[in-house]
Amino acid sequence: MPSANASRKSQEKPREIMDAVEDYAKERYGVSSMIQSQEKPDRVLVRVSDLTVQKADEVVWVRARVHTSRAKGKQCFLVLRQQQFNVQALVAVGDHASKQMVKFAANINKESIVDVEGVVRKVNQKIGSCTQQDVELHVQKIYVISSAEPRLPLQLDDAVRPEVEGEETSTSQAVFRLQSGICHLFRENLINKGFVEIQTPKIISAASEGGANVFTVSYFKNNAYLAQSPQLYKQMCICADFEKVFCIGPVFRAEDSNTHRHLTEFVGMDIEMAFNYHYHEVVEEIADTLVQIFKGLQERFQTEIQMVNKQFPCETFKFLEPTLRIEYCEALAMLREAGIEMGDEEDLSTPNEKLLGRLVKEKYDTDFYILDKYPLAVRPFYTMPDPRNPKQSNSYDMFMRGEEILSGAQRIHDPQLLTERALHHGIDLEKIKAYIDSFRFGAPPHAGGGIGLERVTMLFLGLHNVRQTSMFPRDPKRLTP
Amino acid sequence: MPSANASRKSQEKPREIMDAVEDYAKERYGVSSMIQSQEKPDRVLVRVSDLTVQKADEVVWVRARVHTSRAKGKQCFLVLRQQQFNVQALVAVGDHASKQMVKFAANINKESIVDVEGVVRKVNQKIGSCTQQDVELHVQKIYVISSAEPRLPLQLDDAVRPEVEGEETSTSQAVFRLQSGICHLFRENLINKGFVEIQTPKIISAASEGGANVFTVSYFKNNAYLAQSPQLYKQMCICADFEKVFCIGPVFRAEDSNTHRHLTEFVGMDIEMAFNYHYHEVVEEIADTLVQIFKGLQERFQTEIQMVNKQFPCETFKFLEPTLRIEYCEALAMLREAGIEMGDEEDLSTPNEKLLGRLVKEKYDTDFYILDKYPLAVRPFYTMPDPRNPKQSNSYDMFMRGEEILSGAQRIHDPQLLTERALHHGIDLEKIKAYIDSFRFGAPPHAGGGIGLERVTMLFLGLHNVRQTSMFPRDPKRLTP
Repeated sequence: MPSANASRKSQEKPREIMDAVEDYAKERYGVSSMIQSQEKPDRVLVRVSDLTVQKADEVVWVRARVHTSRAKGKQCFLVLRQQQFNVQALVAVGDHASKQMVKFAANINKESIVDVEGVVRKVNQKIGSCTQQDVELHVQKIYVISSAEPRLPLQLDDAVRPEVEGEETSTSQAVFRLQSGICHLFRENLINKGFVEIQTPKIISAASEGGANVFTVSYFKNNAYLAQSPQLYKQMCICADFEKVFCIGPVFRAEDSNTHRHLTEFVGMDIEMAFNYHYHEVVEEIADTLVQIFKGLQERFQTEIQMVNKQFPCETFKFLEPTLRIEYCEALAMLREAGIEMGDEEDLSTPNEKLLGRLVKEKYDTDFYILDKYPLAVRPFYTMPDPRNPKQSNSYDMFMRGEEILSGAQRIHDPQLLTERALHHGIDLEKIKAYIDSFRFGAPPHAGGGIGLERVTMLFLGLHNVRQTSMFPRDPKRLTP
Repeated sequence: MPSANASRKSQEKPREIMDAVEDYAKERYGVSSMIQSQEKPDRVLVRVSDLTVQKADEVVWVRARVHTSRAKGKQCFLVLRQQQFNVQALVAVGDHASKQMVKFAANINKESIVDVEGVVRKVNQKIGSCTQQDVELHVQKIYVISSAEPRLPLQLDDAVRPEVEGEETSTSQAVFRLQSGICHLFRENLINKGFVEIQTPKIISAASEGGANVFTVSYFKNNAYLAQSPQLYKQMCICADFEKVFCIGPVFRAEDSNTHRHLTEFVGMDIEMAFNYHYHEVVEEIADTLVQIFKGLQERFQTEIQMVNKQFPCETFKFLEPTLRIEYCEALAMLREAGIEMGDEEDLSTPNEKLLGRLVKEKYDTDFYILDKYPLAVRPFYTMPDPRNPKQSNSYDMFMRGEEILSGAQRIHDPQLLTERALHHGIDLEKIKAYIDSFRFGAPPHAGGGIGLERVTMLFLGLHNVRQTSMFPRDPKRLTP
């Protein structure tokens, strides 16, 4: 590693300058040979976020990206970035650095990864443009570890959006670290509650729920399909006495929807749970899990939330304990009072969902609530009817900032009623025989729901497009990278 | 709930008997009306596993499946099962139960789910056939919550495999609870180490690595493919400075392999990590993660391990700390000493892997080891060559009980070398342009690997077929349920 090799391509000709004059610093900089695990040096690399006044006057090694560089006579100022943290570094002609070395540093392409040895120096005036505001690094050695190809000319790039660019990197890091946290909190909470994580197959032999919006796969000499939800499998686990199960995995929808909140492949966080006497036992468990996620995010991910807010300002996400639950008929009354005309058995349109969200926020001061008792007519055939009101069902959606993030219900666990409801919906019984048969050997009453991970991330952070919360979004027009 | 409705189908005519004689217990049994969440009774259901002498003489409610039933004059003995736990229950003619009630209980189909009220009674002689050996339940009320359809005639079923059947249920519960534990320990460990969980797309636009063994999906008007591994996406996250990432998700292989250890869809636990100077930094992190999983399973899942061992006896899984790492050349020497003829650059066959596992176990007394420095010729094009020996590579597999559970390597992070290696392998550069381009803007040295969840479960428990550790296995001939 210390043996630098300044002869590799893509750096702009430091060599010819170095050849012209004797260079007293020539061992102190260059392009490192490719790291192929030749050696195991015991050099310790310090994190940029650890460069504070506590380390003043220490000599440290740092590996970071060159975020910006600015040469100024006998000096070159670099901003070195490591994820969302950055620090100013100074290469100045003197005992450690030669003119050639300063020139070399100034010519390193932005985004290249460098190993830098430097002295941590306290600064008199805070460096406002860096996260490490109280110190800078006085560079003694600098080696390029991985060279980035040049992008746009610096001047243009700087002129267009000098600050936003850095912010985008940080925002993106923050969004996906927070999303990782959502998954972690979801599971941590459910495992503590005695849930078992299951793995459900994504390639299935028959399209569930009649076959609309399903992707077809060539499976050896036959066709198969991509699962639109793990629901059948979650329910089979309940029938096999797992009692409380969850899974996190991809869900596929061949819908040609090009909206801010639809993806053809998204991550489903699914729950299914046997209950004793009332599906509200499950509703409360799910709502509590979401509340624990919100709390956990606000406790453990404040840095990330603030970083995203810096680029996309947004009010803090509000929720109540216990979670607000309103019935569909109350929602209808609120919407009608606000001038919306809707039938009793009509589903909510997206604009009406959003309006309802605003009305609920005004009235109850919460961004999170449960809408219970949907009309039976607008729910899937396997939804348990409400025994007290044949037009209602034991089903619910949950909303964040006025947008649906979960849909769920008590499922029909009686094969005879399930058959009746399927016939009522005009579903071919042959196609769902295996599903119905899975309830013939005794099934406990159960309910569940599926949560869209990208939507939870988007709405918690107050973002406006689900593509901002999917690293590699898939929609009808986008399949790469 | 208390209002039982004894008139529903599929129970064998208790009614006609009850009509014939005045039945003083008629409110104490029957088929419950379907639970549609009509009521929220405050009845507490006790877990079967909590029925111990501490509860002696208490009246409790239990919901469980009827595992077996045996009528004997004025008595009926039921075994009530809840997951892997069971307890004996007695319905005997007396103050609480009538003749009709005993007959009703005796006629409940096996596997039906019942709510039972009973007094916990200490027994004088241990009940060897139940997990709750010190108590039995004296039934006062019994209602069928969900009726199972009758299966084979009881006699035949009993004759064929009375004990194994119960064991299978327990084994299956135990296997999948332990598998849930593997995922949990994997993530817990990595999150503590600062890893970020990522979600990678499963539908991809181009088949990676040349397109063999890939499933094709109809994607609107075009074709797409199912990802054979999340590797490209893990690496892109490393290039985006996430430093340490992991994911757990389905992996698809369109291989027509019908073996004990191949599935067409399995669960991959994937890791990718930037390192400082040597890929062994990553190897050690992965091996430590696996060791923490083994330890966690042996500490937290002893009950499950013993349950599986009861049906499938197996030696305790052994491992060393730090993990044994041997180089490929040493493995070759061991195999040659055992009489195997192999060339220096030849890959290990499955029988040779297993033999090597036995030799390593004899010599080092471990079921888990790392085989390092595979011949470059047998690894994919993106594998980093060993700078000291051009025939070797910075790549490794990990083995449990002589079978491969992880394959990994330092990846080439330099676009020029990557191009050279792809050409050497005869790969069409156009097809992997996006992959190569992702390294053009600076990439830290990195390494990783993918672990097969079902294999880890199988080999830790000493099972012999990966289909025992996949709830819904997929192979070339099996797509259902």
